[in-house]
Amino acid sequence: MARELTVSVDAMGGDAGPGVVVAALARSVQRHPLVKFILHGDEALLKPLFARRAKLLERVSIRHAPDRISMEEKPSIALRRGRNSSMWRALESVKKGEAEAALSAGNTGALMAMGMFALGKLDGISRPAISVILPTRRGQVIVLDVGANVESDAEQLVDFAVMGEAFARAVLNLERPSVGLLNVGSEEVKGNEAVKGAAHILRHVNLPMEFAGFVEGDDIAEGTTDVVVTDGFAGNIALKTAEGTARLITSYLRGALRRSVLARIGALFASGALMALRRKIDPRAFGGGVFLGLNGIVVKAHGGTDALGFASALDMAIDMAEAGIVDRIVADHAAVSQAIHAGAAAS
Amino acid sequence: MARELTVSVDAMGGDAGPGVVVAALARSVQRHPLVKFILHGDEALLKPLFARRAKLLERVSIRHAPDRISMEEKPSIALRRGRNSSMWRALESVKKGEAEAALSAGNTGALMAMGMFALGKLDGISRPAISVILPTRRGQVIVLDVGANVESDAEQLVDFAVMGEAFARAVLNLERPSVGLLNVGSEEVKGNEAVKGAAHILRHVNLPMEFAGFVEGDDIAEGTTDVVVTDGFAGNIALKTAEGTARLITSYLRGALRRSVLARIGALFASGALMALRRKIDPRAFGGGVFLGLNGIVVKAHGGTDALGFASALDMAIDMAEAGIVDRIVADHAAVSQAIHAGAAAS
Repeated sequence: MARELTVSVDAMGGDAGPGVVVAALARSVQRHPLVKFILHGDEALLKPLFARRAKLLERVSIRHAPDRISMEEKPSIALRRGRNSSMWRALESVKKGEAEAALSAGNTGALMAMGMFALGKLDGISRPAISVILPTRRGQVIVLDVGANVESDAEQLVDFAVMGEAFARAVLNLERPSVGLLNVGSEEVKGNEAVKGAAHILRHVNLPMEFAGFVEGDDIAEGTTDVVVTDGFAGNIALKTAEGTARLITSYLRGALRRSVLARIGALFASGALMALRRKIDPRAFGGGVFLGLNGIVVKAHGGTDALGFASALDMAIDMAEAGIVDRIVADHAAVSQAIHAGAAAS
Repeated sequence: MARELTVSVDAMGGDAGPGVVVAALARSVQRHPLVKFILHGDEALLKPLFARRAKLLERVSIRHAPDRISMEEKPSIALRRGRNSSMWRALESVKKGEAEAALSAGNTGALMAMGMFALGKLDGISRPAISVILPTRRGQVIVLDVGANVESDAEQLVDFAVMGEAFARAVLNLERPSVGLLNVGSEEVKGNEAVKGAAHILRHVNLPMEFAGFVEGDDIAEGTTDVVVTDGFAGNIALKTAEGTARLITSYLRGALRRSVLARIGALFASGALMALRRKIDPRAFGGGVFLGLNGIVVKAHGGTDALGFASALDMAIDMAEAGIVDRIVADHAAVSQAIHAGAAAS
């Protein structure tokens, strides 16, 4: 599937700064020999980072952008005043067709607002969604929407399912991902009108996925389905509750392993295993969020990420570009619309 | 605060059976010398459990109930056909005024439906809510609603806040609990209409609590506030996501500690600490859920609980009865209604 393509990168987003981004690019060029990068940011800061990486510059072109969007900036302000920012320029490269995907570790709200404005929404998709990949007992799960919207109706949830299955095929390499709708019970009668309506549509359309019906909050970590679809309100709460619970338990674990001499000795022996556990649940390892439903690929790396995390976000952007995810979503969405209209006409 | 009171107990609910319930009663009579119990269930099964506990019978009266509600029974069916069940009889004791609180480890949906029918809703409360207590980094947090409703408007969320603060004062012994509204961001402009409307009301009414504004999913485990108020859809998803994440991490931990000889040795040394950790995050330790907004106290013990868990659910029921929680909710709710109406009249 590997082919020549270009990824546009915001060097100035995130807490860690451009050093992390350049280190991630150094990793990524090794992994993806056919991919080129456009790096947007403050030239005066970026050039020195390449002083000992002359070879990297064969694959990375630096474009000067004088401004940067801060993590605290309101999306509306960023949109109005941010045209000289590295974030806007990174998106603009996709808009102009110079790059197939854009990546930033910056302000999520600003990136979404700018992404909508620069690239526009995909035909027929009324609302973009933010999608994340989380670890499960069986592997990984894609959850969307985790916060782009605060309310979603049945047809928007169906759009999320379409986007989620296309994303699962692109980055989890599944031919026919299973998709569940997040609900408060697995029985058909449960839930609000939006999830019941979405389930009704998903049961009756022919998509390249296995619709598994309703799933519950604990099915996310269980890995019951490959994709979990929900509105951005419940999805954001679920994501942050999972992160908070993970932090709570690791802090309990740390506390427990310090409480007695025996426990401290045990922790010493098991330190390798405990480090591996920490890496396994480190949110930075999961590459951040992906904005689906835009007319272009936009990936949001975790704000506090390191070079490894940023590189895995780059992997994700490249996988999506190689899989032609935007065209896949458009095609699947057209099939759903047709089925819905045919159903409406028949009933 | 201790005073004479009676708690009515469904002996037949839950997976563990009446043995667990009777063992819990044996603990509870020690802790609460002034409390009596009415135990509803199959006499033929219950009597032998007291063979060696003759003294316990001075504080426990057994009432024969021929039927039991299964964990799979639909609430509507349970309501129609369950009048001879131990669950219904347990609620009926509260309705008749023989007991101040009812406790069951049985089917949640059936208990709620029967509770609503037997006891009715509190004046002015349009929807009851299910409330749970969860562990946090700082102590404990009360979360409601975790599943009694699938949608809630602003005034219902305000009712949940009133019920949550009364519950926090009764069982967490706080004079002025802090209350947060679960949302997708802490800024005032974020969220759906229901949470924004509820925040507006809560900022302007005078209640015996500290309204802390919006909190996010990770604030639950962080313990940012004493009470977290949300609609039953997001609340149920948050609760189950937290449970699923806790199970995932403990399974990762188990796996990590088995992977190498060193790790196994470490786990051996730290086994006491790891057991303590397991107990700390065991959902059974948190006593199950409480139904708030009914005209009486109804506590749902965790279905898979042991004697310890059931006893802690009994503690909770007794604390609530001693605090006169029902009257407190009625009084606080009246104050809120008055403030809302005064505000409406003034504007």
